[in-house]
Amino acid sequence: MLKMVVDTMGGDNGSKVVVTAIKNFLKKNNDVEIIAVGKKQELQELEGICEIIDAPDVVPMTAGALDVLRMKNSSMMIALNLIKQGRGDGIVSCGSTGGFLASSTIILKMIPGVKRAAIVTAFPLQKRHNYLTLLDCGANLENSSEELVQFAWMGRLYSQIVVGVSEPNVYLLSNGGEDEKGLSTIKVANKMLRESKFPNFVGNIEAREAILDPNVDVLVANGFDGNVFLKTIEGTAKYMSGLIKKAFKHNLSSKIGYVFAKKGFDELKNSLDYKAVGGALLLGVNGAVVKAHGNSDERSFESALRVLKKLIETNVVDKIKEGISHNE
Amino acid sequence: MLKMVVDTMGGDNGSKVVVTAIKNFLKKNNDVEIIAVGKKQELQELEGICEIIDAPDVVPMTAGALDVLRMKNSSMMIALNLIKQGRGDGIVSCGSTGGFLASSTIILKMIPGVKRAAIVTAFPLQKRHNYLTLLDCGANLENSSEELVQFAWMGRLYSQIVVGVSEPNVYLLSNGGEDEKGLSTIKVANKMLRESKFPNFVGNIEAREAILDPNVDVLVANGFDGNVFLKTIEGTAKYMSGLIKKAFKHNLSSKIGYVFAKKGFDELKNSLDYKAVGGALLLGVNGAVVKAHGNSDERSFESALRVLKKLIETNVVDKIKEGISHNE
Repeated sequence: MLKMVVDTMGGDNGSKVVVTAIKNFLKKNNDVEIIAVGKKQELQELEGICEIIDAPDVVPMTAGALDVLRMKNSSMMIALNLIKQGRGDGIVSCGSTGGFLASSTIILKMIPGVKRAAIVTAFPLQKRHNYLTLLDCGANLENSSEELVQFAWMGRLYSQIVVGVSEPNVYLLSNGGEDEKGLSTIKVANKMLRESKFPNFVGNIEAREAILDPNVDVLVANGFDGNVFLKTIEGTAKYMSGLIKKAFKHNLSSKIGYVFAKKGFDELKNSLDYKAVGGALLLGVNGAVVKAHGNSDERSFESALRVLKKLIETNVVDKIKEGISHNE
Repeated sequence: MLKMVVDTMGGDNGSKVVVTAIKNFLKKNNDVEIIAVGKKQELQELEGICEIIDAPDVVPMTAGALDVLRMKNSSMMIALNLIKQGRGDGIVSCGSTGGFLASSTIILKMIPGVKRAAIVTAFPLQKRHNYLTLLDCGANLENSSEELVQFAWMGRLYSQIVVGVSEPNVYLLSNGGEDEKGLSTIKVANKMLRESKFPNFVGNIEAREAILDPNVDVLVANGFDGNVFLKTIEGTAKYMSGLIKKAFKHNLSSKIGYVFAKKGFDELKNSLDYKAVGGALLLGVNGAVVKAHGNSDERSFESALRVLKKLIETNVVDKIKEGISHNE
């Protein structure tokens, strides 16, 4: 029986959406047990449905590593300690990203040999396998060449195991496609990947092509750049959605047009619904850790629970352990 | 009489689009003289219309600094030397960006006191003044805090003079809005801007908000990050345009919808036409230098000519000289 620990607190929309997501998830997944950690007075709807562990404190959104570690009675710390004690196979939280990253790394430690954890996200684009796997999305700022090479390994494994791409094409995000283009850490990482004949390492790629080229399965970047890439996509997509709405409201004729075109555009809207992806994984930490969006609603938190279940079922963490030790 | 030097060679679409752009531009701007530099056999249509200077060589797209400097008979080098000799007030090229950057910097030198030149682009977004000024878009890779502060000054001046914003709101691109978030160079630049009470320096901003917040007039970034930001917007916009087309083709009903909604969507298409912006400026170099897109068509190259004309008319380079020496 799979056991998942949920930190129910700290999200922008409160514990209520998490509670609803848990209820909906358990209805469809009777092979999973959940331990819900949080202020028990907010978790009453879960009584009889799953185990509840009380936690009076909540890690604030702006918390850093030291802040979290001091908050021993926070839902986040209590939940992570449950994993450490072996009482759960994986954990999900929608609380402070910085705090969760730091505390996961410190409490669960890194997989032996992994230098830095990366936040990995797979988002839907018209790729040959429907998703682009991107890491690091922001666990780090700048990364060394060795860390970028490890990210390439983790991204490849994630793409194979979770997205289901048997031989993912892997690229480094740079300011051009030539091997000699980019930050020195990227150029050296490129060289290392080529010299070690990394399977299906294609080369450097510019951001524009990374989005448009359907053959890009895995994109490896410094945490800061991966974060800029991801947030820029989000901002542009939202901006253009606004323009589309405006275009349909342009005049009476456009409004009529909307009625006819509605179905096609609902599909467009769904295909861009990044919230449906659910969560990002913290890969490299010695445990299955999913970070749900801070502003998750019921649907996206439920997706995050599904992502965690898949992570646990496919044994990604052990496979990374094998993969990393194999390539040291 | 304003004099503009045009390097006609090296663009993806050949000299023909440049020739057409020059002809169209001169018809509408009889207060401008142009010196067209390139293979004279390709510039025959310009005879009698503007001065032609023959240049047998073309700088290839992948050229670096040393390559260009060795190519003394290239249109790029000949054109830059005309500026150096005082025979023109400004220059535009759509050839190798790396080559043009390097050769402009070496031949024209920097404005005294400016540490690094930046590629500045103003692109149309729903901002309070219709444009977002972004620098550096890729002249550099990583920049020091001092360089970021100088970019803030150059971006402010550009926004005031060329875009027409009297008091531009200036931001630093980071991975969050807090002053303490981001690369150390960004954090230090933030501190320097606050301590010097830089006019209307608002703070750090995440990429998503940089696009969506209408109050963002100037965005300052490291060259590498600015390039990722810009190319990601381009890729996402193109991607979504493809989705919009697909949505309209979804079924017969959608196709009918397109007929009704066409006018509104043509406007959307135009508002995103970044090629209409024409060119990016190399600010910080001691001369008015515009880099047109490598894949410019006639319309976008003509826009680049207009941008150069405005740069010269508004005396941006001298104003930066004053501004920089004033704030050293």
